[in-house]
Amino acid sequence: MLRTHTCGELTIENKCTKVTLCGWIQRSRDLGGMTFIDLRDRYGITQLAFNMEVNAQLCEKARQLGREYVIKVTGSVIERSNKNLKMSTGEIEILVDEIEVLNESKTPPFTIEDNTDGGEELRMKYRYLDLRRNILKKNLELRHKMSIETRKYLNSLDFIDIETPVLIKSTPEGARDFVVPSRINAGEFYALPQSPQTFKQLLMIAGYDRYYQIVRCFRDEDLRADRQPEFTQIDCEMAFVTQEDILTTFEGLAKYLFKNVKGLEIHDFPRISYSDAMKYYGSDKPDIRFDMKFVELNNIVKGKNFKVFDDAELVVGICAKGCGEYSRKQLDELTEFVKRPQVGATGLVYLRYNNDGTLKSSVDKFYDEDLLKKWAEAFDAKPGDLILILAGAAEKTQIALSCLRLEMGNRLGLRSPNKYAPLWVVDFPLLEWDEETKRFYAKHHPFTSPKPEDIPLLDTNPSEVRANAYDMVINGVEIGGGSIRIHDKMLQKKMLNTLGFSDEEAQIQFGFLMNAFEYGAPPHGGVAFGFDRWCAVFGGSDSIRDYIAFPKNNAARDIMIDSPAKISSLQLDELNIIVKDIVNKK
Amino acid sequence: MLRTHTCGELTIENKCTKVTLCGWIQRSRDLGGMTFIDLRDRYGITQLAFNMEVNAQLCEKARQLGREYVIKVTGSVIERSNKNLKMSTGEIEILVDEIEVLNESKTPPFTIEDNTDGGEELRMKYRYLDLRRNILKKNLELRHKMSIETRKYLNSLDFIDIETPVLIKSTPEGARDFVVPSRINAGEFYALPQSPQTFKQLLMIAGYDRYYQIVRCFRDEDLRADRQPEFTQIDCEMAFVTQEDILTTFEGLAKYLFKNVKGLEIHDFPRISYSDAMKYYGSDKPDIRFDMKFVELNNIVKGKNFKVFDDAELVVGICAKGCGEYSRKQLDELTEFVKRPQVGATGLVYLRYNNDGTLKSSVDKFYDEDLLKKWAEAFDAKPGDLILILAGAAEKTQIALSCLRLEMGNRLGLRSPNKYAPLWVVDFPLLEWDEETKRFYAKHHPFTSPKPEDIPLLDTNPSEVRANAYDMVINGVEIGGGSIRIHDKMLQKKMLNTLGFSDEEAQIQFGFLMNAFEYGAPPHGGVAFGFDRWCAVFGGSDSIRDYIAFPKNNAARDIMIDSPAKISSLQLDELNIIVKDIVNKK
Repeated sequence: MLRTHTCGELTIENKCTKVTLCGWIQRSRDLGGMTFIDLRDRYGITQLAFNMEVNAQLCEKARQLGREYVIKVTGSVIERSNKNLKMSTGEIEILVDEIEVLNESKTPPFTIEDNTDGGEELRMKYRYLDLRRNILKKNLELRHKMSIETRKYLNSLDFIDIETPVLIKSTPEGARDFVVPSRINAGEFYALPQSPQTFKQLLMIAGYDRYYQIVRCFRDEDLRADRQPEFTQIDCEMAFVTQEDILTTFEGLAKYLFKNVKGLEIHDFPRISYSDAMKYYGSDKPDIRFDMKFVELNNIVKGKNFKVFDDAELVVGICAKGCGEYSRKQLDELTEFVKRPQVGATGLVYLRYNNDGTLKSSVDKFYDEDLLKKWAEAFDAKPGDLILILAGAAEKTQIALSCLRLEMGNRLGLRSPNKYAPLWVVDFPLLEWDEETKRFYAKHHPFTSPKPEDIPLLDTNPSEVRANAYDMVINGVEIGGGSIRIHDKMLQKKMLNTLGFSDEEAQIQFGFLMNAFEYGAPPHGGVAFGFDRWCAVFGGSDSIRDYIAFPKNNAARDIMIDSPAKISSLQLDELNIIVKDIVNKK
Repeated sequence: MLRTHTCGELTIENKCTKVTLCGWIQRSRDLGGMTFIDLRDRYGITQLAFNMEVNAQLCEKARQLGREYVIKVTGSVIERSNKNLKMSTGEIEILVDEIEVLNESKTPPFTIEDNTDGGEELRMKYRYLDLRRNILKKNLELRHKMSIETRKYLNSLDFIDIETPVLIKSTPEGARDFVVPSRINAGEFYALPQSPQTFKQLLMIAGYDRYYQIVRCFRDEDLRADRQPEFTQIDCEMAFVTQEDILTTFEGLAKYLFKNVKGLEIHDFPRISYSDAMKYYGSDKPDIRFDMKFVELNNIVKGKNFKVFDDAELVVGICAKGCGEYSRKQLDELTEFVKRPQVGATGLVYLRYNNDGTLKSSVDKFYDEDLLKKWAEAFDAKPGDLILILAGAAEKTQIALSCLRLEMGNRLGLRSPNKYAPLWVVDFPLLEWDEETKRFYAKHHPFTSPKPEDIPLLDTNPSEVRANAYDMVINGVEIGGGSIRIHDKMLQKKMLNTLGFSDEEAQIQFGFLMNAFEYGAPPHGGVAFGFDRWCAVFGGSDSIRDYIAFPKNNAARDIMIDSPAKISSLQLDELNIIVKDIVNKK
């Protein structure tokens, strides 16, 4: 090694030792008689000292070195006169005898500090410099730790890590695939996996019993803020299990990670059905760090000539504890908030429970004090509370109120990133009806098993069929989900028929899986976790991008390497494809 | 769980316990009064017993079940009368009370046995059945163990596992890229990585110091027997290191794996220069499980009117100990062997050192006994040995003799898969001249550093420049290789110029890396191991395909899922590409 020690390990114990360190110049300070340099590497920062009186030439040399120069220094560990006890190396410094410049550096386009002056675009372009920042390094270290502990837990339970192929086959179901033209098989394409779903099921059929993989997956979607075209899953599958076994096993994983990565003991996860999640939180990924459950008011508010409520499919509200003194301005802000297109409500009705016990509502010309009392009772409201009510079409109103609930949670400081409230959402519907294409889609995926008792409904009322499907949610973020799978060929065929596949189409697309079901498929089920997102939640962040070493931007571009890019006509020829004339489009 | 125990864990200790097992029917035997079923799962085989006298109905039911049916049985653990001490469960059997058929099975297209009757094509098509065979299961378990131990070793040395992107950018250097058309950026393409080379270098520039990843890589090559279009690498990089540090660290990894996976203590690896490897073994990946080094004869054999030798650039041979009694037929076989197109020699000269001390050669009309004695001395041959000599153009002859050497190693049983002889090959040439395109190519890759003392030769004699590059070889198989990288922008530019890139082309292709070199790039280097191949070598096999769960065939097809395949015109439209009319080609 070019060094004897790293920049993070020397302490007062090493006093008088002769050492060689390598690293980057974080900053230097010229104090006349002395020059100090903070030398940084992955492991920490060590202060270098140069004394004008002891070695003027060397001190002058040190003064010439700019930020981010890479240097190698040799010197003696000495005790600092001015100790910094916040740093592990803060009691010592190196009195330098020799400097070697290993590489120079231009002045970086932004400062390598926790609070950098670089904008997002610039930092993405120079990602290798952004990654020098402590904050991103901590994120990648957290990710590494998560990966180590996940493997440790799953290995200890006899899960076997098996790699599945990346060059697979396009399926029309689900999101768009990325495809890869084949040169050897002209006119044909591989697809990149959206998940190893069918392969892990085949591994169960092959008898592997417990499988996992931390695996890259791909979706060619129009990007949203927290999506990436490539992302990583913790992908797992088990045979000879019930839903209960899966929930227990992976609740175990989550608790293990909470303990070993975050140092937190977490109690058993509450479980809530999909329909209750929608009813009480208006969301299938409720943030239960705070309560503030929905209360339905249809029976209480209707028939009093307030047309908005009388016409509404659903009148529903929340009670914000201690917000009874909200000003007119604050209430107007909330009204503006719910009217935003992303939230989608048309207006907001409030009921203020004053500290003196009186009640004040925006609609009190329709409802007298006695009626309003009943509202307050429905919410179990106390003096000093504020009740916020939305009305309209059921699902739309639930979603809008869910946004308002989260907003109130933010305003009341109930959503601390350091508090964790995980839960399971269970009993998802098997199917979703799409008005546009007039067909059912699989809510989870086409291999999810209906609850046995609901199978007859597939013929009579498919939208009522519940699935053996479950999601793990932490702090309002869906961390992962899974299901018990269909392992019976006839049921799988029926499911694909329900999704609009003819028998022939089903055979072409999923024939290998349906055939496999004929050779002794065991009951099985599994789960997949969004690894990037789990890391972000554990890091207390909303942005998965900060937990990926080299992410793409919202236009699916890597602006550092400038990809995607044009390829040569020779490559196109070999691949037997032509790019359409796109001059007109650009 | 549907079971209380697995099929691999019950012993005489569990006698009288009531248990429930799940698994596949390996085979059943009907012995009149009794029926026995071998029930198999991932963990082992347990014998089930059904007694006609105790429960005739159940016994009849058991007799109806075919091979590979999936069943669940409940019963009591009893001591076997006829013990099989070769199996961990061989002292007990289950006296069954209840059977539930979890799934039926058609008769598999081949037997699920170590020696199966299925051909390669059939087994690939039904890979999920082939994977039930013990032999493939053991391979995947070995692979899992290799992965666990590799991570353990590297984690313990502060290597950090960082995931690099799969959707990157095509580069014209090296093998062909697989590409992925971008829908959002019409007319542009991502490429799949042949290795994360540039990203791991950027991570060193970003200060991550020690990086690793067990990562999928892709090469669109015309396939050879032991190549796959997608394959897995153990990819590593370190900063502030010399070549010696890398060799020590990864020799450490290899020894750790030998010990913890194979239970073998391995001594320090010999190191041999590329030029010596070619001189003594005719190969840059010599199998040194046996000696049989090349001996050059130019000085001894020339000038005796034997035209073949006189005209040859190189006359070189090996001594096969104890083969002096080879028959005419055996010698003819060897001559045929060397004349095969894959070997490429035009003929073979032998010298037999008879047990009586006399010498017999195929060319003894040109060389008398005294001269032949000198040959024998050059090889340090003893009575009973056989010397085999080839002659011709130097490189071609070395390669042919290398094939013959391995063939003799096979014939003499010197290449046992249970014996391991690892080594380092070092001091590779930096560049290779290609006659066809009349340019130099990087022997390793364009980022490999020349040895500092050889840099001046880049201008005068590029083919003589040695690189700081090294390969790890085990039993004649290249397991991995790497190099110290260039970290200086000017040297990188010079290297790219030598490879025929103009400054502008270099900037377009590798601009992001060259720019990164301007912001404090540390000295760094690394290595990448072929994980599939390493597993195969540890498994004692030549075939990487047997160590990949879902491999592709030699036409790069996955015949189980039938991929690659055509995609819909809608997909092509969205991707802005057209498939050329290939009707005429097909």
